[in-house]
Amino acid sequence: MATMEPREFLAIPGPTPVPDAVLAAIARHPIGHRTPEFSKALKEVTEGLQWLAETKNDVFVMTASGTAAMEACICNTINRGDRVLSLICGVFGERWAKLAEAYGAEVERVVFEPGQAVDLAILQQKLKADAQKSIKAVTITHNETSTGVINDLQAIAKMVREHGALSIVDAVTSFGVTRLPIDEWQIDILATGSQKALMLPPGLSFIFFGPKAWDAYKDCKSPRFYLDVGKCKKSLAQDTTPFTPNVSFVEGLKVSLEMIKAEGRDAVFARHIKLRDSLRHGLKELGLQLFVEDACASPSITAILPPAGLSVGEIRKGLKSRYRILVADGQEELKGKIFRIGHMGYVFERDVHMTLACLQSVLVDLGFKPTPGAPAQAALAR
Amino acid sequence: MATMEPREFLAIPGPTPVPDAVLAAIARHPIGHRTPEFSKALKEVTEGLQWLAETKNDVFVMTASGTAAMEACICNTINRGDRVLSLICGVFGERWAKLAEAYGAEVERVVFEPGQAVDLAILQQKLKADAQKSIKAVTITHNETSTGVINDLQAIAKMVREHGALSIVDAVTSFGVTRLPIDEWQIDILATGSQKALMLPPGLSFIFFGPKAWDAYKDCKSPRFYLDVGKCKKSLAQDTTPFTPNVSFVEGLKVSLEMIKAEGRDAVFARHIKLRDSLRHGLKELGLQLFVEDACASPSITAILPPAGLSVGEIRKGLKSRYRILVADGQEELKGKIFRIGHMGYVFERDVHMTLACLQSVLVDLGFKPTPGAPAQAALAR
Repeated sequence: MATMEPREFLAIPGPTPVPDAVLAAIARHPIGHRTPEFSKALKEVTEGLQWLAETKNDVFVMTASGTAAMEACICNTINRGDRVLSLICGVFGERWAKLAEAYGAEVERVVFEPGQAVDLAILQQKLKADAQKSIKAVTITHNETSTGVINDLQAIAKMVREHGALSIVDAVTSFGVTRLPIDEWQIDILATGSQKALMLPPGLSFIFFGPKAWDAYKDCKSPRFYLDVGKCKKSLAQDTTPFTPNVSFVEGLKVSLEMIKAEGRDAVFARHIKLRDSLRHGLKELGLQLFVEDACASPSITAILPPAGLSVGEIRKGLKSRYRILVADGQEELKGKIFRIGHMGYVFERDVHMTLACLQSVLVDLGFKPTPGAPAQAALAR
Repeated sequence: MATMEPREFLAIPGPTPVPDAVLAAIARHPIGHRTPEFSKALKEVTEGLQWLAETKNDVFVMTASGTAAMEACICNTINRGDRVLSLICGVFGERWAKLAEAYGAEVERVVFEPGQAVDLAILQQKLKADAQKSIKAVTITHNETSTGVINDLQAIAKMVREHGALSIVDAVTSFGVTRLPIDEWQIDILATGSQKALMLPPGLSFIFFGPKAWDAYKDCKSPRFYLDVGKCKKSLAQDTTPFTPNVSFVEGLKVSLEMIKAEGRDAVFARHIKLRDSLRHGLKELGLQLFVEDACASPSITAILPPAGLSVGEIRKGLKSRYRILVADGQEELKGKIFRIGHMGYVFERDVHMTLACLQSVLVDLGFKPTPGAPAQAALAR
């Protein structure tokens, strides 16, 4: 039954708001997947993704969520016993380590404090210490969704390249948010998903696979079938997919990529920086403490500590019940310690204003005293 | 740009026609996946799938296409070196063998002629010969999509159960088409997908996992992560999924299961039998030769030989260009030798009439002479 409520506003780190034009594309009746029409759509989205990542590398559309694309990065390149260095800034960094271990890799974890970025000096030291070049791959979380930290991927990829290991990158919450020129930065393998800045519901994921990755693929004996990029490449040469794809979401992706092209790649990235800066400014004006320092603050997710005496649960509940605004709790060890606001994809300045104003109102109702003199709508001060 | 053409009619064996109500559900803005609302939807579809399969076994919703669910059947139960007997009636039977081999199984293929069903006597003999009970699992294709053959799954599962091996069943094009009481027939593992009789676009798949399968899971060392049913079970106990699911399609599935419930399980199965019989009757009246005998004719897919002198390509092209009706070619060795009409899910008697009449008109234009005295619309004679 229809009820008079505002549409749920997904200020979580995914799924994110989906534009009406994308919903309309998804809602069209599916077409056959072995047709020239689908081949054309697949070609368009493949080229669109390459354009967005400024790369000539292969990219494959997987009908699965982001973790499956991450698994494809591993099971197509890593053998049992291979040494993998995992740079871990949170839950998703740890996921790389678990994935590599699932395939029998010897994983060395380099763990950074929650809310901190990868310390480049420590990475440099680890790579330098590996004089035998026994590290086969380094796993990297470009943007750590669980804490709202963005890593200096350009610098990390350069170090990894100079060492000779494969760079394997989770770009699930950075792709389409910030510049990610795969060829210029020489990133070997990169995974991302549909339900973040690509503005689709969850259900598709993407893997970029470069020449060095194909070398590793040739020697890789790990079992795989559905996630086998070799099968994807063979099929894509004929403008199709090895298994029945989510044709509806490919149509939706065509539309979202058109929207990104129309706005302009650089304008999209600039908008995300502006969203982040406005939000962080407003939160600080309110007197709230941010979990991550400006230097490594994510352009897509902002983590906030609840004011003293208030719980994350009651803040989230207030936003949801009163305003139908969904923000995320912390994950695992950070559960109840931070709340997270997603601001990627189909998100605009007005959404930041709305979220800040509603957050302020919820906090005040819970007894919080904003910084004296803070404007009613803190973000507007900027 | 909108053009004045009829909606493409998917008379292929999937994706199949999707009801407007399902498209509308999919087109609603996605909800967060860690919310009570999504948990409720997941619980509803889980219970709906169990109801449809008359089972208390676990069922897990995978965001991936059917082949991934098939892979999950293997990678959660089969170890390197395990003996697997694969009953092969076509492309999808062979897929089981390839999947098991990908995980290092010792596969024995029992291959039946294309268009033939599994010969129960041969299976009985194979199982009897295995006195040491070294066969760990038997893979079965309930309905072979590539030829339009349905196997006697009840009898096969009984034999496998008596031997003691695991029964692993591909029910992608039989689930929701014909009765499939998992508990009564004691089927251990069964995979199916969204884009067939469940009337969704491709993008979700489902795996039913019984007690004997869980025993095998405990001893299974095959690498897996995204497709790990243990992770699914742990999450489902909390009414959620281990990885971000396709929330939109879960909403769509809720609607399609409601439609199936409203029609009635037995009525759905009876409708599919009637569709098959009407179509086969009409095709015979036209003078066409069917690829599969009545005794094992699939209730969801019918394969037809092109009349002498006509090519599958020109028949398919005629149906598509003149009527926007999509029928499928044969696959692999049957390419160009048969064409296949899908009739599962959101398909009705009127669609059979339409397809037959349009096929007749295309064939006549191509020079084919229908059987003298055949009615203009052959199916109407029934």
